[in-house]
Amino acid sequence: MLNCVCMKVNVEDYIKSALKEDITSEDITTNAIVPPLRQGYAHLICKQTGVIAGLDIFSHTFNLIDSSAHFETDYKDGDFIEKGTQVGTIYGNMQSILSGERTALNFLQRMSGIATYTREFVEELKPYKTKLLDSRKTTPNMRIFEKYAVKIGGGYNHRYNLSDGILIKDNHITAAGSVAEAIRLAKDYAPFVRKIEVEVETLKMLDEALEAGADIIMLDNMDNETLKIAVSRIGNRAKTECSGNVTKDRLKDLGEIGVDYVSCGALTHSAPILDFSLKNLRALN
Amino acid sequence: MLNCVCMKVNVEDYIKSALKEDITSEDITTNAIVPPLRQGYAHLICKQTGVIAGLDIFSHTFNLIDSSAHFETDYKDGDFIEKGTQVGTIYGNMQSILSGERTALNFLQRMSGIATYTREFVEELKPYKTKLLDSRKTTPNMRIFEKYAVKIGGGYNHRYNLSDGILIKDNHITAAGSVAEAIRLAKDYAPFVRKIEVEVETLKMLDEALEAGADIIMLDNMDNETLKIAVSRIGNRAKTECSGNVTKDRLKDLGEIGVDYVSCGALTHSAPILDFSLKNLRALN
Amino acid sequence: MLNCVCMKVNVEDYIKSALKEDITSEDITTNAIVPPLRQGYAHLICKQTGVIAGLDIFSHTFNLIDSSAHFETDYKDGDFIEKGTQVGTIYGNMQSILSGERTALNFLQRMSGIATYTREFVEELKPYKTKLLDSRKTTPNMRIFEKYAVKIGGGYNHRYNLSDGILIKDNHITAAGSVAEAIRLAKDYAPFVRKIEVEVETLKMLDEALEAGADIIMLDNMDNETLKIAVSRIGNRAKTECSGNVTKDRLKDLGEIGVDYVSCGALTHSAPILDFSLKNLRALN
Amino acid sequence: MLNCVCMKVNVEDYIKSALKEDITSEDITTNAIVPPLRQGYAHLICKQTGVIAGLDIFSHTFNLIDSSAHFETDYKDGDFIEKGTQVGTIYGNMQSILSGERTALNFLQRMSGIATYTREFVEELKPYKTKLLDSRKTTPNMRIFEKYAVKIGGGYNHRYNLSDGILIKDNHITAAGSVAEAIRLAKDYAPFVRKIEVEVETLKMLDEALEAGADIIMLDNMDNETLKIAVSRIGNRAKTECSGNVTKDRLKDLGEIGVDYVSCGALTHSAPILDFSLKNLRALN
Amino acid sequence: MLNCVCMKVNVEDYIKSALKEDITSEDITTNAIVPPLRQGYAHLICKQTGVIAGLDIFSHTFNLIDSSAHFETDYKDGDFIEKGTQVGTIYGNMQSILSGERTALNFLQRMSGIATYTREFVEELKPYKTKLLDSRKTTPNMRIFEKYAVKIGGGYNHRYNLSDGILIKDNHITAAGSVAEAIRLAKDYAPFVRKIEVEVETLKMLDEALEAGADIIMLDNMDNETLKIAVSRIGNRAKTECSGNVTKDRLKDLGEIGVDYVSCGALTHSAPILDFSLKNLRALN
Amino acid sequence: MLNCVCMKVNVEDYIKSALKEDITSEDITTNAIVPPLRQGYAHLICKQTGVIAGLDIFSHTFNLIDSSAHFETDYKDGDFIEKGTQVGTIYGNMQSILSGERTALNFLQRMSGIATYTREFVEELKPYKTKLLDSRKTTPNMRIFEKYAVKIGGGYNHRYNLSDGILIKDNHITAAGSVAEAIRLAKDYAPFVRKIEVEVETLKMLDEALEAGADIIMLDNMDNETLKIAVSRIGNRAKTECSGNVTKDRLKDLGEIGVDYVSCGALTHSAPILDFSLKNLRALN
Repeated sequence: MLNCVCMKVNVEDYIKSALKEDITSEDITTNAIVPPLRQGYAHLICKQTGVIAGLDIFSHTFNLIDSSAHFETDYKDGDFIEKGTQVGTIYGNMQSILSGERTALNFLQRMSGIATYTREFVEELKPYKTKLLDSRKTTPNMRIFEKYAVKIGGGYNHRYNLSDGILIKDNHITAAGSVAEAIRLAKDYAPFVRKIEVEVETLKMLDEALEAGADIIMLDNMDNETLKIAVSRIGNRAKTECSGNVTKDRLKDLGEIGVDYVSCGALTHSAPILDFSLKNLRALN
Repeated sequence: MLNCVCMKVNVEDYIKSALKEDITSEDITTNAIVPPLRQGYAHLICKQTGVIAGLDIFSHTFNLIDSSAHFETDYKDGDFIEKGTQVGTIYGNMQSILSGERTALNFLQRMSGIATYTREFVEELKPYKTKLLDSRKTTPNMRIFEKYAVKIGGGYNHRYNLSDGILIKDNHITAAGSVAEAIRLAKDYAPFVRKIEVEVETLKMLDEALEAGADIIMLDNMDNETLKIAVSRIGNRAKTECSGNVTKDRLKDLGEIGVDYVSCGALTHSAPILDFSLKNLRALN
Repeated sequence: MLNCVCMKVNVEDYIKSALKEDITSEDITTNAIVPPLRQGYAHLICKQTGVIAGLDIFSHTFNLIDSSAHFETDYKDGDFIEKGTQVGTIYGNMQSILSGERTALNFLQRMSGIATYTREFVEELKPYKTKLLDSRKTTPNMRIFEKYAVKIGGGYNHRYNLSDGILIKDNHITAAGSVAEAIRLAKDYAPFVRKIEVEVETLKMLDEALEAGADIIMLDNMDNETLKIAVSRIGNRAKTECSGNVTKDRLKDLGEIGVDYVSCGALTHSAPILDFSLKNLRALN
Repeated sequence: MLNCVCMKVNVEDYIKSALKEDITSEDITTNAIVPPLRQGYAHLICKQTGVIAGLDIFSHTFNLIDSSAHFETDYKDGDFIEKGTQVGTIYGNMQSILSGERTALNFLQRMSGIATYTREFVEELKPYKTKLLDSRKTTPNMRIFEKYAVKIGGGYNHRYNLSDGILIKDNHITAAGSVAEAIRLAKDYAPFVRKIEVEVETLKMLDEALEAGADIIMLDNMDNETLKIAVSRIGNRAKTECSGNVTKDRLKDLGEIGVDYVSCGALTHSAPILDFSLKNLRALN
Repeated sequence: MLNCVCMKVNVEDYIKSALKEDITSEDITTNAIVPPLRQGYAHLICKQTGVIAGLDIFSHTFNLIDSSAHFETDYKDGDFIEKGTQVGTIYGNMQSILSGERTALNFLQRMSGIATYTREFVEELKPYKTKLLDSRKTTPNMRIFEKYAVKIGGGYNHRYNLSDGILIKDNHITAAGSVAEAIRLAKDYAPFVRKIEVEVETLKMLDEALEAGADIIMLDNMDNETLKIAVSRIGNRAKTECSGNVTKDRLKDLGEIGVDYVSCGALTHSAPILDFSLKNLRALN
Repeated sequence: MLNCVCMKVNVEDYIKSALKEDITSEDITTNAIVPPLRQGYAHLICKQTGVIAGLDIFSHTFNLIDSSAHFETDYKDGDFIEKGTQVGTIYGNMQSILSGERTALNFLQRMSGIATYTREFVEELKPYKTKLLDSRKTTPNMRIFEKYAVKIGGGYNHRYNLSDGILIKDNHITAAGSVAEAIRLAKDYAPFVRKIEVEVETLKMLDEALEAGADIIMLDNMDNETLKIAVSRIGNRAKTECSGNVTKDRLKDLGEIGVDYVSCGALTHSAPILDFSLKNLRALN
């Protein structure tokens, strides 16, 4: 996902912007104290147990400020790492290593936090066909990093944004007058390569959505009983997505009920970070 | 803090960028279904109990896409709000309300989550003179929003970034050869309006830092016993900051010991969001 | 489509960039000769018969350089206009009208050219259920304007870009080893809200694609005989899109054969413009 | 013209912007199906006969997303190429080749289309001293590419934009009160390195312009008879440019009449593209 | 020159960038001390005698951070002002006035400094037909402001940049092999609306340049004797520009000699500022 | 200071912007006359005696437009150079050398001018402990270059901008009601790593500021007598800065009086440039 194309076209500007946020004129402490033009290295240490995500972002952050920088590691995104693991070594200009450290870690810790949190949810669903989805409840200007981290954690991505997926919600239905009319309008307007997803809160709305030919039904804020009825009534006529009040505890029930997808905003908006630090900066002789 | 100057000079570009992240060509669902050029309103509902932060950001997000938008509310940043409260009403073009909703909420929920989390920490320190500080462990491209939220929650801001504060860490000291030399170099190089802060891990380093004239001593990863000795040894010769392994449970002890400041990265990197939603979109007749 | 949200989030930067392309320091001729601060107006004349598209873009171009500018017209995008029609009147600062004229017209003439050209194709397909689609063969940095113009001309939009639609082409199939494997990989990787479209060149590939569960089959460069067989074999199992060698003359045949969609790159890459000019600039007294 | 300086300073931002237009998060199809980190190549095939223009732009598009990419070819801009010619081979990461393909081709096909169209016009003027000029009727944000293509096709460039050339038109003259006054104002205001060009529609205006010392006279929308008189009357006192209603059929007449320049907006606003495709993507072993 | 079009298209980005340079997170002093949302005013005082230039830039700087700001003045650019004059009053939000003060003054003081310095040079040339020109020796990213200030001071602008004027220098001539060949190449390549200027250092080069049909001859670093011969030899065959070692003391000699233009880099690269300050900030009641 | 991190994060955008200011489409003269793809070199000559500053900026300007460019020199920033010195040689594509020349020199000449001017001031203060400071009176969008040049000249930097230093001025004090209240508000609001500086104009204000615990006292526009009293009264209780009416002639007096710092806006706003040129462009064979 984050290949060289994405890195240049979609990712690099965010990293540059984050570096500018942390360095508005210069890193005074480092420039005062650390001699310039000296090459060195430092170790990346994982201080909590979890799933690592964002190693290329970490490494690319240093490359953006120091063309001589390179990162060596035996790990890759998705690896489960024990607390205390020395994940790898960043080589480069010593001033650059210190100046880029915080920005690089801020990306890595957040992405790995999300991957770790997602993995925990995914584990619950393992015995079932049900897949875990993220949402658009991401941190502003962090979506590409956060959705990638969800994938690394074993989750699946819902639509990326408002421009690449149809999701008809209650407010849209009210505006259209009915579920059927909303779906008709969407089918007529949207690029034909889009599936039509409709959010329903009741079985009555569900029936209308099926009738009108929705491709995906989002079953919103339903209790397990209603969900069961809904899923069975839908059968193969549409894909099912369960949304709202999705906690880790409830996942096994949802898997049992057999919804196709469960979506969960908390994956991106409330995952705590996974802690890393850069240690043992040394000069190369 | 987020006055009209900041909004134009430092904030607006991030909001625009977040809107572009969520709308790369158009909001297909809304544009397909909701009639254009119709004015309406929707209610902002707080779905969890906590401290609200970011109302101007919420409101400005809509203004950026709709000059007719305005937000009415009886609340202000810093208010403690019960779950279920109708916080206010956003008025504007109905398509704009739907298209801006997620971006506006993503800012608000994260900022309010941090303010709420900070408030919980601050409560612990209330009986003491000790102040709570944030760190640079913020989400990339979210620092201005997150540091503001910490203040709204009752915390204080540490330096904003690498360019506006001196903080001499272990790696700097190693590079300089000694604490004293590091401080000397910093004093010579940095703008004279900067205080010099030094991170020390032992009492021996502490003595050197005091001797060399540090303005602020960061006592890093010390246990309570060592902290007590350190604080007493420093007396009025420098400000003290406790950092590392700062959990909510430990705050009272730190207050008792009497450090001037406690800094805590979790305020910004691991606060869960405070949930909000936009409900009851209706047309104005 | 080009509502106030799109205008601010997705369109405005392109117009600004076009203005900067045409005015790198100032409009020397106008600033030398036309007195500043004088309000005036000019007429927008359509010099060829066709479908108008882009009136809001035309008008917004002036607003970006002159907050006093406004455009009055009795026409709207999609109207069919005879050569010589006075389409409307632009009011504003006289220097701004002259300085924005060419940029505003360059957008309008190209968008209207595409709408006009599209309308001619659409007319051919009127008796049939077959719909006309555009492609990604658009002018760089003009896609949002050109795809909008296709819609105004009566066409439909294919995917917007590489990020919001799956289209498996020959090179992808070669890389995957087989049609079935390519579809399996796409289903696993892509957000579940995406339909899977596969380009096939032979009936054998078609069978594989159907078998693997493609949602849309692009029948590429097939002659009418083969197309007929393909469409009948597909039946209701997938949507059909005919692509390659689509000329206006052939459209009736394609409609007769009954493909669901015909896609045509020429709509955006080879439509001649529709000519407009701004005439009779006069001062307001 | 498009040397390394232009590429970095004036061109690269447009290519990046075009890539972002086509890839807003990632190329899902390619990333789903094509293995990452595999090097390969593909052939650039010209599918129509014409003049090629934009090979460096084509190649640079891939370089921007893949530092390993390189393009090998025996052709150069301006070469006349037969339909079916294999123009060259692009080498690089296979995902990058697929993801950059459409953007690279969209530039190349449009630039080559303009060069081809221009060449046809230029051929008509070959026996005469009359030179063919382009205009500012270019596609927004494409001027640098389109004016270059005109040159490659054998045409000459008129002024680049409003800031680097004086062209006094009817509206300017009206505002100034007279041709003489307009020219006087322009001479006084404009950098002295500019020539003064005036658009005239009648012989009376022509006399005034000559009298006032115009360097170039644009003879706008005149029939051949009037043109002949105008050109003879001007003699060596100014350069002559014929503009308006310039079709290919009329060029020989204009050459015969002996105007110095003929300008034609259609070169950039209505040239159909020259079709290219990328074929036979293969892995390097 | 700096009309509303320029302000939006060419100027505003530089002012915004300057504001971001001075305010990277917030104006801490002002936000700490001055109450928000309070309207006030302050006086703009001129602390040195000279020519004012840049009042619209001054005023627009405040408008960019405060839509309520407006500037009232009885003066206009080009006015000669005595030390101590109260030039005008800026009204607006009190925090905005303080936060924008330095950026607004930095533009105004530099532009007025250049205008004042230019005026002194122009006075020397008053009795003569010789006009004073600026050069491209401007402060990076300040050219539009500095060239405007030269005009306000009574000078004339040479070409704006490398893209809008031909100036053949010694290095070009060496590369071409001869003056004649350099001129031939330029005439063939450059847009026909450009005049051809050639820099010559000797009378021999002058003869070649005249022979080859140069429009403007830059007489570089010649002593007065040689200049006199050169100017007389050129007569009406080309415009003359004297360049190099142009000091104020020498201007009368140059006027006497009768060159058409004298160009002087010092106008923009070495003019001291004209000092202004903002005084008496008061709240509006 | 201007290490590789600063160059990428804080400097490069300004250089690119300056290049775009000077080259809006192409360098017509060079591209017309100098053959493309030919490597060459030219000498950098210092035409005045002074302190050189900005060699890396000079060199990086060429690197941005020509990856093959490199600069060889035996000098470094801070060296004192005699008029006529050949400072170094720039190697690269010949077109790039000519096209980048003016932008590179415009940076170098201004930075070296400031360094030279600063050095003259610093020399006066040599016998004393008093240090020379710059101010925020810099040229818009040039601060990073100008503050660096002050350091190279032997001066010290005051705060970088409004976000990284507290400086309470008269208008702030008026708004707060008193010096004491202004300091209290600042201490409460500002990040605790900031020192508090207060500008005082009278001894009475001085007493209040000392009482309230200011870290730095700016003694504004005081005559030498008052200064002497103020400095003696302050003793070790705060750092002292003398500001206002600071001319070179007065520096020795100020040193004698024993203020810690003298700040001087003229260093950046009124230093004349140090003249350089690029000579003897030759092709490499």
